[in-house]
Amino acid sequence: MHRYEIPALKIPTGRIEQLTDGIFAIAMTLLVLSIAVPTLQAPVTPAAFSAYVTSILPQIFVYVISFILLAVFWMNHHLFYIIKHSNTTLLWINILWLMSIAIVPFSTSIIGKYGGFQLAQLIFDLNMLIIGLLWYANCYYAWKKGFVAEKVLPYADHIRRSNLALPVLAIIAIMVSFISPAGSFLVFVLVPVIFTLYTVARRVRAHRSPDH
Amino acid sequence: MHRYEIPALKIPTGRIEQLTDGIFAIAMTLLVLSIAVPTLQAPVTPAAFSAYVTSILPQIFVYVISFILLAVFWMNHHLFYIIKHSNTTLLWINILWLMSIAIVPFSTSIIGKYGGFQLAQLIFDLNMLIIGLLWYANCYYAWKKGFVAEKVLPYADHIRRSNLALPVLAIIAIMVSFISPAGSFLVFVLVPVIFTLYTVARRVRAHRSPDH
Amino acid sequence: MHRYEIPALKIPTGRIEQLTDGIFAIAMTLLVLSIAVPTLQAPVTPAAFSAYVTSILPQIFVYVISFILLAVFWMNHHLFYIIKHSNTTLLWINILWLMSIAIVPFSTSIIGKYGGFQLAQLIFDLNMLIIGLLWYANCYYAWKKGFVAEKVLPYADHIRRSNLALPVLAIIAIMVSFISPAGSFLVFVLVPVIFTLYTVARRVRAHRSPDH
Amino acid sequence: MHRYEIPALKIPTGRIEQLTDGIFAIAMTLLVLSIAVPTLQAPVTPAAFSAYVTSILPQIFVYVISFILLAVFWMNHHLFYIIKHSNTTLLWINILWLMSIAIVPFSTSIIGKYGGFQLAQLIFDLNMLIIGLLWYANCYYAWKKGFVAEKVLPYADHIRRSNLALPVLAIIAIMVSFISPAGSFLVFVLVPVIFTLYTVARRVRAHRSPDH
Repeated sequence: MHRYEIPALKIPTGRIEQLTDGIFAIAMTLLVLSIAVPTLQAPVTPAAFSAYVTSILPQIFVYVISFILLAVFWMNHHLFYIIKHSNTTLLWINILWLMSIAIVPFSTSIIGKYGGFQLAQLIFDLNMLIIGLLWYANCYYAWKKGFVAEKVLPYADHIRRSNLALPVLAIIAIMVSFISPAGSFLVFVLVPVIFTLYTVARRVRAHRSPDH
Repeated sequence: MHRYEIPALKIPTGRIEQLTDGIFAIAMTLLVLSIAVPTLQAPVTPAAFSAYVTSILPQIFVYVISFILLAVFWMNHHLFYIIKHSNTTLLWINILWLMSIAIVPFSTSIIGKYGGFQLAQLIFDLNMLIIGLLWYANCYYAWKKGFVAEKVLPYADHIRRSNLALPVLAIIAIMVSFISPAGSFLVFVLVPVIFTLYTVARRVRAHRSPDH
Repeated sequence: MHRYEIPALKIPTGRIEQLTDGIFAIAMTLLVLSIAVPTLQAPVTPAAFSAYVTSILPQIFVYVISFILLAVFWMNHHLFYIIKHSNTTLLWINILWLMSIAIVPFSTSIIGKYGGFQLAQLIFDLNMLIIGLLWYANCYYAWKKGFVAEKVLPYADHIRRSNLALPVLAIIAIMVSFISPAGSFLVFVLVPVIFTLYTVARRVRAHRSPDH
Repeated sequence: MHRYEIPALKIPTGRIEQLTDGIFAIAMTLLVLSIAVPTLQAPVTPAAFSAYVTSILPQIFVYVISFILLAVFWMNHHLFYIIKHSNTTLLWINILWLMSIAIVPFSTSIIGKYGGFQLAQLIFDLNMLIIGLLWYANCYYAWKKGFVAEKVLPYADHIRRSNLALPVLAIIAIMVSFISPAGSFLVFVLVPVIFTLYTVARRVRAHRSPDH
């Protein structure tokens, strides 16, 4: 198939990576707009200002977690995604994945402001589920088509397990939201924890079997 | 003409591509601001929050389509635009084109919020028409001046047809808006569809005539 | 002086260029936020929406001019600024210049919304004056210190004249603002016109004396 | 430890630098959103507009200082941070540091609008303290692990002193805030001053001992 493609009309993969990096940097910085700085009703008393600061504490917590989640997705992208080739299908999966990344500042705003409602949590959980599924589709398709670099092949199992973590957590979060909306968000705090444990575990195993 | 130009005072084309990539990444991420996260009147009831979420569903749909449109424009830029040289005229056409790209988050906001009005649709349609015409002018001028890389030349017809799709669709959308404002926007849903069909058709044709 | 500097502690000029490109791309795209998309008082009538669209026409005009101004500054940066070396002073002049570039979306918002007031125009004019003076200082300092690439040296006069255009126009705009606030802004429409005429004139002169 | 790591799964340090540059460029440009452009109550009188402009003067001052602070952090990053290697721990310190950089437009907004309150100043001071401590941790860890390039090693003392300046100033600012909220912010005006003096001092010393 590939030898019939018009070579001049191919998008170099470097450009897609650059667009990806740009969208991540912007989305991570736009998250800050999810913390509201309203014009308080004059005259502003110290008590009113303190009440406002207290009211944004959950928004700051949500900002921190969302920033870390995006950072994990970004790292995951660079750690596990080494493509030799690409095609139009893979490109479109990537575009849709970037679209679900770029909407994170919105879903973060929603739970920062209205996190007490189950519906708000479901919007965020759904956003994470879509990110997870598209990323899994991305890796699976690249794998099946043989676009992945050979040196990554021995780590197939690690990568498959790692990529299923996010969709599974999102489904758990959706189930938790029926019991406790706020608890639903806490499920995602596990993402950086799992990511770290996984990295440590990999390193420990490597120490034990140096001939591996 | 070119040998009289001051070589030291030339803008390398790589820089323009970088500005283009930057503006696309930012415009695509700023689209998310077209989905409103208002401060609802306290006390916020679950019913009021559900009503709000229902009210932003069209905004999310518009976000998805606009993101895909910008992605198609970006891909088109990389797929078909391979320049060897540039001059001041081409640079200005590019700047004006980028200006009409950077305004997409605004026209997207307008139809996200006020898509029921024909005037709102006309603003979006006009935005798309200007993008399409400037892009066509860009390609046509680069072609006429011989700035295009030689390996792209055999695909002249494909490229010309592809570049006329957007202005033609925009004119159709303008006409549709007189009958149905909402229908006008749906015309642009055809852009990714046409883009995909075109890519598939090109591939199938390549399969049939491998000696091509 | 330079041979005593710690080589490892020098900022490569490529990085400053990248920060410059990033800030320009973002400032040019943030300009779009100067066009207001308010939540109109419900029920929104077609007449109310038309009145809103009419009210933002000046904002769109201001957006177009500001975008072109930033594009001219960006091009000017790449056309005339070829440095071999840098030092801390030059770096700081650059930082202050970038600061006055990054504030353009604010001053554009101000005249888009309140362009009828002389004070609003003065804020924009002052912004342009500071950009012009810092850029002139930048070029003058790089020149005096011998940081400029040798191949640019023969074009010293062109560059000096070109760099004085903006501060002079800003001072004219300030004077015009005392007669007509709206007229003040129109002075800057001359920037792309002068830039284009200057480029054309340079090319014509080059045609006449090919042995130059 | 490093020879057991999976080479294919390593994030090249160039990518982290690119994300850093992107986040800085965006955060520096988003600062401009901390200067409010409200829709004044119609009819807008010249007196009302003048009152508005007077009211944003502190916001512009805060914008200028925050922009310079971010520029200093950015320069510091490039001046003193030359890593040969990286690991997951260092990466996470970097991510958390970037998170505290990306929140600066928020804390700047807060003191631009509510700088008269001690609590507002404390938010900004705390933001600076966290940036300073994470940066110190970053450098200290890279140092301890031997990730720093050898040519930087002779300047260890300069770098250690320089990196302690920000946390110390932030603690002073916190103490000052108990006496005068506005005075607390002025402490940070010292950052660029110290940075400049330090650079000049380094250069003078270099002049005195050229055999150094």
